[in-house]
Amino acid sequence: MRPRFYVPDLDATAACMSLPDDEAAHLVRVLRLGTGAEVEVFDGRGGLWLAEVVEVGKRSASVRPIARATPAPEVALAVTLVIGVLKADKMDDVVRDAVMLGAAGIMPVVSERSEISLSTVDKSQRVARWQRIAVSSAKQCGRAVVPAVGAARLLAAYLAEPVDGVRLICVEPSGTGDGVRSVQAVAKPTSAHVIVGPEGGWSPAELEAAMRSGAVPVSLGGRTLRADAAPLVALTALLTSWGEL
Amino acid sequence: MRPRFYVPDLDATAACMSLPDDEAAHLVRVLRLGTGAEVEVFDGRGGLWLAEVVEVGKRSASVRPIARATPAPEVALAVTLVIGVLKADKMDDVVRDAVMLGAAGIMPVVSERSEISLSTVDKSQRVARWQRIAVSSAKQCGRAVVPAVGAARLLAAYLAEPVDGVRLICVEPSGTGDGVRSVQAVAKPTSAHVIVGPEGGWSPAELEAAMRSGAVPVSLGGRTLRADAAPLVALTALLTSWGEL
Repeated sequence: MRPRFYVPDLDATAACMSLPDDEAAHLVRVLRLGTGAEVEVFDGRGGLWLAEVVEVGKRSASVRPIARATPAPEVALAVTLVIGVLKADKMDDVVRDAVMLGAAGIMPVVSERSEISLSTVDKSQRVARWQRIAVSSAKQCGRAVVPAVGAARLLAAYLAEPVDGVRLICVEPSGTGDGVRSVQAVAKPTSAHVIVGPEGGWSPAELEAAMRSGAVPVSLGGRTLRADAAPLVALTALLTSWGEL
Repeated sequence: MRPRFYVPDLDATAACMSLPDDEAAHLVRVLRLGTGAEVEVFDGRGGLWLAEVVEVGKRSASVRPIARATPAPEVALAVTLVIGVLKADKMDDVVRDAVMLGAAGIMPVVSERSEISLSTVDKSQRVARWQRIAVSSAKQCGRAVVPAVGAARLLAAYLAEPVDGVRLICVEPSGTGDGVRSVQAVAKPTSAHVIVGPEGGWSPAELEAAMRSGAVPVSLGGRTLRADAAPLVALTALLTSWGEL
C-alpha cells in the first residue's frame, strides 16, 4: 500500500500542493520520503488521488496529484454512531473501529452513568483527539471519507433534536422490555443513528426518554458485551443484516 | 449481578463444596465475602447454580449450591475461532471477545506472517493465560460454558486434520480472488471453524493450502480491518447472518 496523506483542501488540478503541517511532518520525518515518491492523497470527502512528491523541505512537502484512484467502498446508507463516552483508551478504539466499519459520523454523548463529565471532555480537547484518530483510521482502512466527530453533548440534548432516518438504541440482555427488537427485525432505513451506552449502561429514565424521542430499542443478543466491544458488534450486526458489510 | 465462581468439578448435590484456590482467593481477598453471601457457581459446561457461602478460611472458601439458575443462552451451532496468534494484549482481547460472542472453542495457530513463533507461545505459557481469560470472560458475559483454548499449532498442522462442519477463512478486501463469498452467502452450517489471520494476513501459499483443505474464503467487506478487530467482526457478521447473535 502506498503511504496516504490527508489533504482537506485538496485541488486535484494543482501542479504542486503543499501538505498540511502534520501530514508533511509524517512524510518527511517518519517515512523519510524523497522527491519522486509515489503516494496517495485524499480529501476526506471521498476523493482519492495517486500523487507524486514534488518538493521536500525540512518540515514541508508538496505533491502533484496524478490520477484519480479508487478508495474502499462506502456504506450505501449514512450510519452515525452515537456513543456514551468511555474511558480514555477504550474511546480511542471505538472511534477507530467505527471509522473502519464505515460509519458516516460519530457523536459522543455524556449520560447519567458516564464516568467522565461533559466539562472534562471539553477541557481535555478529546474531540480533537478523536478526530485525529478518525483521520488515521480512514488511512488504514482505505476509506477516502473522514467521518466527522461531533462536539460532545448531554444525551438529553442530543435526544431533543430531531434526526433524519431512524434512531436505534442498543440495550443490554437484561433490558428485554417492551418492543425490544433483534437486529434482524430492524428494516434497512435510509439513514440511521445507532446509540450505544457507556460502561454502566443506560438508566431506566434515559431509556424511556430515548423511546419517547422515537428510538427503537435493539438487542445485541443474550450475552453481556464489554462496553468497548458493543459499538463494533452493533455496527457489524446492523450492516450485515442490511447487506452492507 | 451476583459474584460468579468457576468450579470445574461442581457437584450440585454437595452440602459443602470447596472452591478452587484462585477462585477462593478472589472470594476471600478481593470481594471479601463472608458466610451466608449469595453467589453463583458454574461448571464451565453449561451448569449454573445459585449458591450460598458456607465457610470462609484465610485462603479457602466453600459454597452450597441451592438452585439451578439460567445462564446466558448458548449459540445453537458450535463456532470455533481459529486465530493467527497476535501480539500480547491484542490476543487477550480477541479471546475475551470470542467468548463473549459465544464461540465454542478457540484454536491459536502460528502462520508464516505471525510475529511470534510457536516455541515462544509454548515457553511463555500463553495458552494457560488465554484459558484464564476465557474463564473471566465467561463470568462477565453471563455464559456458564467456558470455551476450551486449544494448544497452539502451526497453521499447516491444523489444516492437515479434518474437521466436522465447514471451514471458513477470512480474507482481506484485496484478496477478492476466485470463489470469495460474502458473509450473507455462507449458508448456516451445523458447526463451523472461522479462521482469521494475524497482523500481516495470509501468504498466497497459505490461502491455497486452506482452500485445498476445503476452507471457503469469506470477505468481511471492502474496508481493511485491524487484525484484532477482525475476529469480532467475523464472528458477529456470521452469527447475525445465521440468526444466532
